Amino acid sequence: MSADGPMPAALPVPADFAPPPTADDHLRWADADAAARPGRLGRLRERFDAVGIDAYFGLRREHMRWLTGFTLADGEEKLAGTSGQFLVGTGDVVVLADSRYTIQASREARGARIVDGPRDLATAWPSLVASVGARRVGVEAAMLPYAVWRRLEIAAPDIELVPVEGWVEADRATKDPAELERVAAACAVADRALAALLPKIRPDATEHDLALELEWLMRTGGAEAVAFEPTCLVGPNAAMPHGAPSEAEVRTRAVVLFDFGAQVGGYRSDMTRTLFVGEPSERDLAVFALVARAQASAIAELVACVDGDLGLPSGRDLDAVARRLIEGDGRWPAFGHGLGHGIGLQTHELPSLTASALDAPLPTPTVFSVEPGIYLEGETGVRIEDLVLLDAAAGRVERLTQFPREVIVLPC
Amino acid sequence: MSADGPMPAALPVPADFAPPPTADDHLRWADADAAARPGRLGRLRERFDAVGIDAYFGLRREHMRWLTGFTLADGEEKLAGTSGQFLVGTGDVVVLADSRYTIQASREARGARIVDGPRDLATAWPSLVASVGARRVGVEAAMLPYAVWRRLEIAAPDIELVPVEGWVEADRATKDPAELERVAAACAVADRALAALLPKIRPDATEHDLALELEWLMRTGGAEAVAFEPTCLVGPNAAMPHGAPSEAEVRTRAVVLFDFGAQVGGYRSDMTRTLFVGEPSERDLAVFALVARAQASAIAELVACVDGDLGLPSGRDLDAVARRLIEGDGRWPAFGHGLGHGIGLQTHELPSLTASALDAPLPTPTVFSVEPGIYLEGETGVRIEDLVLLDAAAGRVERLTQFPREVIVLPC
Repeated sequence: MSADGPMPAALPVPADFAPPPTADDHLRWADADAAARPGRLGRLRERFDAVGIDAYFGLRREHMRWLTGFTLADGEEKLAGTSGQFLVGTGDVVVLADSRYTIQASREARGARIVDGPRDLATAWPSLVASVGARRVGVEAAMLPYAVWRRLEIAAPDIELVPVEGWVEADRATKDPAELERVAAACAVADRALAALLPKIRPDATEHDLALELEWLMRTGGAEAVAFEPTCLVGPNAAMPHGAPSEAEVRTRAVVLFDFGAQVGGYRSDMTRTLFVGEPSERDLAVFALVARAQASAIAELVACVDGDLGLPSGRDLDAVARRLIEGDGRWPAFGHGLGHGIGLQTHELPSLTASALDAPLPTPTVFSVEPGIYLEGETGVRIEDLVLLDAAAGRVERLTQFPREVIVLPC
Repeated sequence: MSADGPMPAALPVPADFAPPPTADDHLRWADADAAARPGRLGRLRERFDAVGIDAYFGLRREHMRWLTGFTLADGEEKLAGTSGQFLVGTGDVVVLADSRYTIQASREARGARIVDGPRDLATAWPSLVASVGARRVGVEAAMLPYAVWRRLEIAAPDIELVPVEGWVEADRATKDPAELERVAAACAVADRALAALLPKIRPDATEHDLALELEWLMRTGGAEAVAFEPTCLVGPNAAMPHGAPSEAEVRTRAVVLFDFGAQVGGYRSDMTRTLFVGEPSERDLAVFALVARAQASAIAELVACVDGDLGLPSGRDLDAVARRLIEGDGRWPAFGHGLGHGIGLQTHELPSLTASALDAPLPTPTVFSVEPGIYLEGETGVRIEDLVLLDAAAGRVERLTQFPREVIVLPC
């Protein structure tokens, strides 16, 4: 164990982190969502005039839940048919639900009118649109398949379809307190799970088995689902920013990189830790230190902007701060991916913290990942990822991920 | 325990079923897939002339894997961007893959040319289509979003897009031996998992915990994934054909219904068993017996057709056989869903065994579920689901699901 490296006094244990959410927490969050929905629908309707529409047809599952309350699990939309698809008129909201989903929809989408979800949307389209008195309908065109769009046009030639993209996505980038609480709770579930996994990270454990165990620990520790399939990558495999777990085994003096997240009350977390098993080399410690400095520099820049009341940086600005630090050091190439991404009902949402992101100030209040990395193909990889809450009006810039980010050397 | 009910001699145990697949099995299946792909591409190209196209653009993940070998996990397509999307020309195949997927694509899609997957498909579209010498391109129009379709039209006005649906779906309905082997292996993984779960099905165990444990048993017992989130429903909850596990607990004299499946080498299984905890009532045993007879009658009809060389029945015919048996009995309503569905790389695929299915003979060789049920709202529900392999030329009609389908009464 390196005597001079920055080391926590002892390995983290699950009790270091916040306990899983209670049934009361879930009820409180559901109430907050219900109270927030009229405002969300109001902001959506305020956009109608700009493009001359009088209704909005949505089918993204995240938008369903956020605007109407109707909740499909990730992937369930593939089997749900039209159930959950919704139409927001100027005065009311209609949610489609076939017989499988009627009870659920009437319980979850309280403010909405529930209409039998047809097998083929086109058959119900004319009467559905007429029922909210609309003539020009904004449609989530980046989601609705071309073949369905054409069938809607044919079924109701006098109803004009207007492609709409990004409206709800932009509004969802700012989060209310009950949303941020759930992201924080999902972070704590993930923190606890990794702490519980530490004793099992030993030579001969495979990437696959550790990833599966980590998923199990989250799903039995307060998560209703994982945010995405957890990744565990050993040694040179960690040089693949999007690698999948294999049968490769943990080895002494090699890194073990975990990228994973939990879902709590619909909201997600995302974190990456790169751990060492057995004494790391000088080079590996230096790579780790540089990544840690890059992450800290981006967060420090954000803190400086908020504290100095200088106006918020853009996602592109923060990406550049972290990237320049690694490039300026000159020893290793900087990460090829972006510095980070917003997170909430989806794992990847706005704001985007990349070199190609809009050069506009970050939204607030919001939450996003900060995840610089260095990848040395065929050798090793290091990434450190935390979620950061930004609330400029409250002067807050806080890491929600609490798991230690110092070098951790596990016994071998 | 009912003395006169049909009971297995002892409760099933995991060793009653085939062991999990070996690494050699997986290699053999991968080889078989590679050998089958030129024929699959050839059959796709034979369809080009009928609609006057000279290329086919695909983006369904099942089609990717089946035609090119490139494999995305379920849901991964949401994060993969254009990676995995593919263009089949008359002479060659192009697979898109961005830097995250380049290594994987060149390993998996051996016969294809790998092209850097652009962030926005439209920017690469003109050169991509030109590279296979095409002018009219068939596009999976039930999958490609309207907004992307429009961008492709604008990016290359001289390239005509032709909506194509159902071609690959229809071809995938017939299965080769290596595909059927994997469905059978996925059945065995599920059979073993339920057998291993039996001792834990006791009063106070919750639906949620049993479903999660069942998933764990499959994923540590040979499945690379679950076919879908396992369902466990107790007592009146079993009356919801698509209910999700809750915190409800197992109770004496109530049914416990499990609907679940495994995935092995990309191929899936799907089974339902309705078990009793403690002595069932006469009524519940009678419901169970009627569902079992309905299932047996549909399979017997299929056997009679194959054995008698009478021509294959349609999916609609088999649905009617099972449905008439329950309706003719007159005591309880028949299932509102279809009798069954094909299964393979997707959980639900062709052939469809429903009242509204095409009245055409079943394809062969193929595999599908047979899953009649009776649902008594507020009281109880029974469904029995097995996968059935049909190979008319070989005179085979076989249940792949091996778990006993007699009444099973667990101790309480």
